[in-house]
Amino acid sequence: MDFRECLETICGSVDGAIAATLMGIDGLPVESYEAPTDDPPTIDVGSLLVEFSTVLGQVRQSAETFSAGSLTEISIRSEQLTTIIRTLNEEYFVALAMKPAGNTGKGRYLLRIHAPNLLKDLA
Amino acid sequence: MDFRECLETICGSVDGAIAATLMGIDGLPVESYEAPTDDPPTIDVGSLLVEFSTVLGQVRQSAETFSAGSLTEISIRSEQLTTIIRTLNEEYFVALAMKPAGNTGKGRYLLRIHAPNLLKDLA
Repeated sequence: MDFRECLETICGSVDGAIAATLMGIDGLPVESYEAPTDDPPTIDVGSLLVEFSTVLGQVRQSAETFSAGSLTEISIRSEQLTTIIRTLNEEYFVALAMKPAGNTGKGRYLLRIHAPNLLKDLA
Repeated sequence: MDFRECLETICGSVDGAIAATLMGIDGLPVESYEAPTDDPPTIDVGSLLVEFSTVLGQVRQSAETFSAGSLTEISIRSEQLTTIIRTLNEEYFVALAMKPAGNTGKGRYLLRIHAPNLLKDLA
């Protein structure tokens, strides 16, 4: 399964999913998939994830500095969007953006089980 | 219920809870409570939360800039610690740090239901 197929599978399996992205910690996307929708897009998810990627680096550094270990996941909930970010290795992460009423638990689960495949293909 | 009592109630109701803190977005704690434990502390949770508070401000700004609305919650999972941060208003947040195997769902629930009380006392 290639990157796009994998991101499409994740999006297609979660109610309320908006987009999934495989991204470098430097904010450069490797691959992205946006779920088809009839609603006009109101949130610039791509730009938001670039912003979040800078935060990810800082959080990872802080967690390691204060002995909390390697960062595995960050979930960010705002009024209009829930974003789950799962780190893959030192350089890449995968993120899923969904509606606030979306199934976050399933989103987290899918990112976790697809992480090894994405990681394998990144090697 | 005063701040400390409230934080103690939250910590005491969640399996694996380590500490709860009411903190300003500037990283200055208003009140903190650490759950009693027989284990020697290995993670400097207080310092880590100060670091995370700087990130909170950035994430909030990004979410608002890209139309994702007001930030409500961030969860940060690392190998040794799960931290749930719930914003109370523009100036304050409440955070719960727990062991990775702790009951995150209950932690989120308790922060949510205690938020109005904390907020009322902050006014």
